[in-house]
Formats: sequence, C-alpha cells, structure tokens
Amino acid sequence: MARVSQEHLDARRRQIIDGAALCFARNGFHATSMQDVLKEVGLSAGAVYRYFRGKEELIGAIVGEVLEWLQATFEEAAKQTPPPPPDVLVGRALAQVLSRRSGVEEGEASYFPRLIVQVWAETLRNKELAAVMNEGYAKVRVAWVKIVEGYQAAGMMRDDVPADRVARVMVAAAQGFVAQLALFDEVPVEALQDGLRGLMSMGKPS
Amino acid sequence: MARVSQEHLDARRRQIIDGAALCFARNGFHATSMQDVLKEVGLSAGAVYRYFRGKEELIGAIVGEVLEWLQATFEEAAKQTPPPPPDVLVGRALAQVLSRRSGVEEGEASYFPRLIVQVWAETLRNKELAAVMNEGYAKVRVAWVKIVEGYQAAGMMRDDVPADRVARVMVAAAQGFVAQLALFDEVPVEALQDGLRGLMSMGKPS
Repeated sequence: MARVSQEHLDARRRQIIDGAALCFARNGFHATSMQDVLKEVGLSAGAVYRYFRGKEELIGAIVGEVLEWLQATFEEAAKQTPPPPPDVLVGRALAQVLSRRSGVEEGEASYFPRLIVQVWAETLRNKELAAVMNEGYAKVRVAWVKIVEGYQAAGMMRDDVPADRVARVMVAAAQGFVAQLALFDEVPVEALQDGLRGLMSMGKPS
Repeated sequence: MARVSQEHLDARRRQIIDGAALCFARNGFHATSMQDVLKEVGLSAGAVYRYFRGKEELIGAIVGEVLEWLQATFEEAAKQTPPPPPDVLVGRALAQVLSRRSGVEEGEASYFPRLIVQVWAETLRNKELAAVMNEGYAKVRVAWVKIVEGYQAAGMMRDDVPADRVARVMVAAAQGFVAQLALFDEVPVEALQDGLRGLMSMGKPS
C-alpha cells in the first residue's frame, strides 16, 4: 500500500464527514445507508470503512466535532475580561457553524439546521449518540458558565441568578433558533442577535 | 347506533390524542403503528378511526392543539398593560404544557419534550405536518409580537429592535429548553426563568 500523508488522510476524513452530514440532513439518519454516503462522497467502501465502521460512528464524529469546536470557541471567549456580550458571541459562533459546508455543494441554505434536528431525534433512541451529545453539551455549558461568571464579575449581569441557568438559556436560545431555521423560513443570524439585544435591555425585573 | 353526548365524544377524542402522543414520544412517529395506538388507548379500530383516519391526522391534531393553546395564552397576555415579563410568561406557559398528561400515566417525567423533538424531525419530511406547524408557529409569533410591542410601548424594552425578532428569540429560548429536557437531564422550568432573568438584566448593550 502506498504511504499517504497525514494531510491526505485528514482531507479524506473531512470529505467523508461532510458528505455523510449532507446525506443525514437530506434524508434523515435512518433512511440514509452507507451506500448513500459512498455515492455522495464518490469513494469506495474500502476507502470509507478505513475511517468509519458505520453510520453510528459517522454521526458521532459529526456531532463531536461541532461540539468540540463550540467548546473551544466559548472557552476562548471566557478568557476575555469582560467576555463579549451574548448577542456577539452567539451570533458569531452560529454564523460560523452555519457556513460550514466545506466543499459540499447544496443548492439551498445551510444543511446544518436540518441535520441538527435529525441528530436530536436519533439521540432519543441511540445510547452511544446520547453519550456523545451529553458529554459535548456539558462541556459547552461549562464554557458558558465561565462566560456568565465573567459578566457577573464585571457587573454586566445581576449575580443573584445561578450562572449555570443562564448558560442553559444561552445555549437554548441558539438551539431553538436552529430548530426554527430547520422548520420554518430562513432568517439571518442577525435576527437572533437583535432579539437577544431586545431581551437584554429589559433591566433587572422586580 | 346509540346516541352519544358531545361530552362523551370529546372525552374519547382526548383519550385517543393523549394515548397517541405517548406512543409517538416513546417510540417515535415512524416506529409507532395505529395498532400500537389502539392498544395504548384500549379502544377498537372502529372507535378510533371514527375520529382519526391515521397517524398523520393524529400528529396534526396533537400539534395543532398545543399551538392553539399557546396562541390563546399569549394573546391573552398581550392584552395586559404592560404585559407580564418574559420570564413569567414563558415559565407559566411551559409549566402548563409540561404538566399536560391528562389521565395517561407514565413512570418518568413529562413525555412532551420527547414528543416535540419527534415532531420536529417528522416535520422535515411531512408536508401536511409542516403546514400545521408553520401556521401554528406563525400565530404564536404574532401573539408574541404584540407582547413585545407592549414592552416597548411601556418603556420596558429598547424599541430600536424589531419586535418580530424578539418574538422569535422568546419562542426559540422555550424551544431550545424543551430540546434540552428531551436530550439531557431533567431540570425545573425555574431554570429557564432564572436564566432569562439573568439575560434580561444585562442592560442596553452599546
């Protein structure tokens, strides 16, 4: 077997992950076969199975990758004093995730929202995926807790609400917005940012 | 055929809807058969098909009912001057929806969050359901726009952000929280309320 560079291996892996993500987003996890994935990425079974043993591994890799990226992004933001406001952080992260199409062409808007909703449904009945989701979500939330603590330390947010609960809601707003993108009309990420700004302006409720 | 009262008809309909919702939440829409629904509600095929022609009609009825109730609830809130703050409104509505078990017993927590995630996934490939969802969601959003305009008119919220975008984010926060309930640990609705309060306290961002 010819020796191949790490770069080549990484690019192949990327290609497979992106093609699989597109298939899952389009037809759902169950209706997609490994055959569909092979066809989408234009590789042989041998080439693909070298990286992933099956659909379960593929979906785990897709989800794990996004969650890791989100964690790193928010950990980085938590280091700033004070951290950038929520509308800026959430908007920036979401815009990035939505623009990730990495060479896979698709006529319509980002396939990411549809993929996410499929992943959620699959998570309900797939224990391995549930474990990946749980771990990844917990890490993203921990990063967000640090950001919220940064806001509270800087006097930007009342400090009598548990940081963990604010972290949940920050993540929830983004999740719900993604669900809306999947289910309803396409709206720009600025809609989420504007909406957050409105909410943030309400002042300390009595 | 014996004449039956409207009350009896309504109770039957309720019983069928609740049983079907439980089945869909438990096993997903696709893995649930009408046979499963009959077994769950303990009625004959004749009795059930008198109300619903199949799974599609059932899921449409379940979704339509919840969305109508949410619309009515928020329309009512919009009439108050000023409307109750978002943490109060969202918390109250969500607590109500989560407690709706109407005679159907289930060992664990509310089945509603799991049902919702299943409905979202099904909406991606079912045009009739997508139409029900779209219409219902639009109505809930319109009600929320009125509430946001009430906040803005009362000086409770900056008025330079479009009310429609704030409405989207209010709904998104609740949707994302429901997704978290389905996917991760069970947390009380107060977590969402506290989180919103934190966010609301951030003041007008520059």
